[in-house]
Amino acid sequence: MEPPFKISNWQQAVTDKRQSLFDSIPKSHLLPSELAEKAAQDKLLPSDPDITSIDSADVILERIATRRYSSLQVTEAFCKRASIAQQTTNCLTEILYDRAIERAKWLDEYQEREGKTVGILHGLPVSLKDAYGIAGVPTTAGLVSWIPNISPTDSSVAKGLLAAGAVLYVKTNVSQAYLMVESINNVFGTTKNPYNLALSVGGSSGGEGGLVAARGSILASGTDGGGSIRFPASFCGLWGLKCSKGRIPAGGIMSPRDGNESVNVGLGPMARTVSSMELWMRAQLQGKPWDFDLSCIPMPWNQEEAKRTRKRLRIGVLWDDGVVRPTPPVMRALREMVGLLSKAGHTLIDLPDEELKNLHRRATSCVMKSNVQSGGYAVMEHINASGEPVVPRTATGSPASFLTTPEVFRNHLERSAIAGQYNDLWTCFELDAILAPSVAHPSPPHGTYVSNSYAGIYNMLDYVTGCIPVTKTDLTLDIASKGWYESTPYPRIEEERFPYDWGDKEMKELYKGPEVYREGRVGLQVICRRLREEKAMSILKEVEALMMKSAS
Amino acid sequence: MEPPFKISNWQQAVTDKRQSLFDSIPKSHLLPSELAEKAAQDKLLPSDPDITSIDSADVILERIATRRYSSLQVTEAFCKRASIAQQTTNCLTEILYDRAIERAKWLDEYQEREGKTVGILHGLPVSLKDAYGIAGVPTTAGLVSWIPNISPTDSSVAKGLLAAGAVLYVKTNVSQAYLMVESINNVFGTTKNPYNLALSVGGSSGGEGGLVAARGSILASGTDGGGSIRFPASFCGLWGLKCSKGRIPAGGIMSPRDGNESVNVGLGPMARTVSSMELWMRAQLQGKPWDFDLSCIPMPWNQEEAKRTRKRLRIGVLWDDGVVRPTPPVMRALREMVGLLSKAGHTLIDLPDEELKNLHRRATSCVMKSNVQSGGYAVMEHINASGEPVVPRTATGSPASFLTTPEVFRNHLERSAIAGQYNDLWTCFELDAILAPSVAHPSPPHGTYVSNSYAGIYNMLDYVTGCIPVTKTDLTLDIASKGWYESTPYPRIEEERFPYDWGDKEMKELYKGPEVYREGRVGLQVICRRLREEKAMSILKEVEALMMKSAS
Repeated sequence: MEPPFKISNWQQAVTDKRQSLFDSIPKSHLLPSELAEKAAQDKLLPSDPDITSIDSADVILERIATRRYSSLQVTEAFCKRASIAQQTTNCLTEILYDRAIERAKWLDEYQEREGKTVGILHGLPVSLKDAYGIAGVPTTAGLVSWIPNISPTDSSVAKGLLAAGAVLYVKTNVSQAYLMVESINNVFGTTKNPYNLALSVGGSSGGEGGLVAARGSILASGTDGGGSIRFPASFCGLWGLKCSKGRIPAGGIMSPRDGNESVNVGLGPMARTVSSMELWMRAQLQGKPWDFDLSCIPMPWNQEEAKRTRKRLRIGVLWDDGVVRPTPPVMRALREMVGLLSKAGHTLIDLPDEELKNLHRRATSCVMKSNVQSGGYAVMEHINASGEPVVPRTATGSPASFLTTPEVFRNHLERSAIAGQYNDLWTCFELDAILAPSVAHPSPPHGTYVSNSYAGIYNMLDYVTGCIPVTKTDLTLDIASKGWYESTPYPRIEEERFPYDWGDKEMKELYKGPEVYREGRVGLQVICRRLREEKAMSILKEVEALMMKSAS
Repeated sequence: MEPPFKISNWQQAVTDKRQSLFDSIPKSHLLPSELAEKAAQDKLLPSDPDITSIDSADVILERIATRRYSSLQVTEAFCKRASIAQQTTNCLTEILYDRAIERAKWLDEYQEREGKTVGILHGLPVSLKDAYGIAGVPTTAGLVSWIPNISPTDSSVAKGLLAAGAVLYVKTNVSQAYLMVESINNVFGTTKNPYNLALSVGGSSGGEGGLVAARGSILASGTDGGGSIRFPASFCGLWGLKCSKGRIPAGGIMSPRDGNESVNVGLGPMARTVSSMELWMRAQLQGKPWDFDLSCIPMPWNQEEAKRTRKRLRIGVLWDDGVVRPTPPVMRALREMVGLLSKAGHTLIDLPDEELKNLHRRATSCVMKSNVQSGGYAVMEHINASGEPVVPRTATGSPASFLTTPEVFRNHLERSAIAGQYNDLWTCFELDAILAPSVAHPSPPHGTYVSNSYAGIYNMLDYVTGCIPVTKTDLTLDIASKGWYESTPYPRIEEERFPYDWGDKEMKELYKGPEVYREGRVGLQVICRRLREEKAMSILKEVEALMMKSAS
């Protein structure tokens, strides 16, 4: 049977699901209740040098390969850490420790017996966004009517990870039907940011972001149809990569589909280091998933290309998209990154401001229309099957946002026109990449993200984007000037059809000062053209190296 | 200004356009009028060993490279031949001999001066379907309201050919708005088949097919959104390749667009030899068109892959799609090809008949819906702008075929479901390819093609398909049995929404006997998965080698 399932008492179904999740946390992992909230931050960001305090998957993998660690040891460490993260930030949806421990033991035995590892991720726990099916494990999509839904097969991404030797041990929280860039739903509640529990982790892959930030995972697997990797990466201080549609096999991802093919969903990893992400990419593509998954373009990972960095990159800068003016911490992050890259000899180019703002405003309108053009007919069926309420700002669409077929098609033509003009920028300025905010503000208080305008356009254009964790809110440096507050707000776009996003005016009202976003992380995007994942990876590596050099 | 253009007297506009085309044929190329119709076939298929009687582009290119021929000599030969083809089969839309001669001279001078060639197509005339823009040259799309339309830029395909050293000398005829698989429109009239002027060349790239069959071109450039390369290749006795969407850059193709993105248009070449087609592919991709054309996937041509043939290919056979039963010549072609491949040691697999028929019937319904889902709102605007009539069977769609947005999206879901099931066949039978008819009948009398059911499904699935010229109607062998005529006709699909195709019943009525299709060519398709152009090429090479061996 396929979801949605009819649920007669949605509150009871939720209570049962939450209890069952809590019951699957081993007793030994339980925090004293006074700790669970109060000492959360100290607990989550410890200074003791245990396995989970290592930043890079490479290091752990090398230590497993050389038998300094066993996979069992590593798996137990991450399971414990994930349990702590769950108790403090509410980031998990499925706990699979039993099968993880069994798998880790098998991997250790294999290594012992064969004298070699299974693959490039041998023994490493890797987390999955709830959307990714694992055979026999629930996928809820943040919907109550999906609670009984069990994935029939492993998703292609899960297959890729398993074939490379990874250990699957948790699935993580999302927004309702994946339709918001925070992680709030009626089944599991809200995932909190480990750096400040009052702030959002972003979404819809927010459980993944939060879990990595809390060191309960070292390598996360997300999906992104409008910022769902980039928001969590940005708000959780992580590297991320949103691939173009088709680069990573999408088979076995479960969602309440409505047949809307106008939105390009890209998959990809999040992690604390770029090299960890590269392992994820290699694991996904080395098994030639295009031979079994029809969604996947037959392009092997080109390691040579991912290594190569041009001595002098030409990088265009998007300072402001004309939809929402970046807040001071984001502007500071941009300036810092431009300074860092310039100093290293790269060419930073201010792209034509008005032309770009015009394109971004048109694109934002297109994206809004594309997202809600079906008028929510399918999603609402999945929500209504249980009687659960719609979570505020979940972009379901409504009959009022319904587009007719000619309107859908005219929107395609407008999108093509914008894509053509954007394409001309690359050619005209001979760009390697574009540097832009991922979102106009740092990790915000729950429920107060403003807009996904900086993210959605690059789904529409199907560009690859890499996420850079740049900084966090600075209580001194990030006080906004009088001029910032007094500048004329950009007019809102498409208010009626898409009432979910807020605009520039609201941004000014929300940014009362940096203290509202205390400990909030700030990320940027580096954007490459369609299917240039290797190029994006090479640029992220360069940025990471420059940041490390600059910090030391 | 963009088309459509308002035309007050469409008949006059057509008369002027045809006169201007005729006037651009050099006097020395004009045939005595009694020859133009009567002696057409002899003239077109001569036995004298001139340049245009060479089958393979490689041979001519090698002779240019070694200066046995000049580019001017070759260009003049094909220009003359194209003029003859035009006078007998009506296959051209634009004659560009002046610029071609100038270009050929420049190429000869370059070679003389530099001691090398410009590229892999140095000096070779290559023809283009009317759809491909050439800067400063009209693109009419077979529409009267487009007669004044001048392409502002070279299409990416034209750029690729020019960069490789090709000579552009003609554009060729299409159907009205490219919306039929024959080549009939009000601007230029009907293109006739050089093998029998009473038969169709197919469409919409029919001018290309006819011109190559008439030896007025050695390398043709087509587009295929529902059989538009495969029908001409099949009806004109040619090899063809329909690539997956995005493999070849589509920039600068001009058509009356309506924003319908549910139909996958694939581009590709047609020729008399497989190696000629490979040159076209290499020329297109060696310039990295993805760096300037956003429609193009960054996948270089993999010559190693295109060379490699598995010793024992596993090829599934589609004997009958359950929509239109193949006519006797097509069944014979299938049996012959299966015999040839089996004898060579390849494994031919009869795919599960009922399951496949069911999939193909469902797919045909999906394809029909996708093609006309916009209700013709944009196309009719382009037709009505001149007052020209709709050519019978042009698949414009009509308000009656209009789909609502939820219907469009449900059709996407059905399409995904079919694609998933089709994908399982590849995995289950470990297929390298599928062998199938391109169309149920040989080149038919004008206006009597039956259905594109064998072709359209592979646009929907975005598979690569290669065309094999197998045989021609045999007046003795291809008499249909009583059983063939008396078998219960398959029920028609989607009659109301898509009244353009005919069905199995009509096929039986039309196939009164092989004499109706006298000299009609019969082609098959070899189908590979999405973006496996190199694999398809390698299999076509194997088939070509086996056919040559078998013929000798």
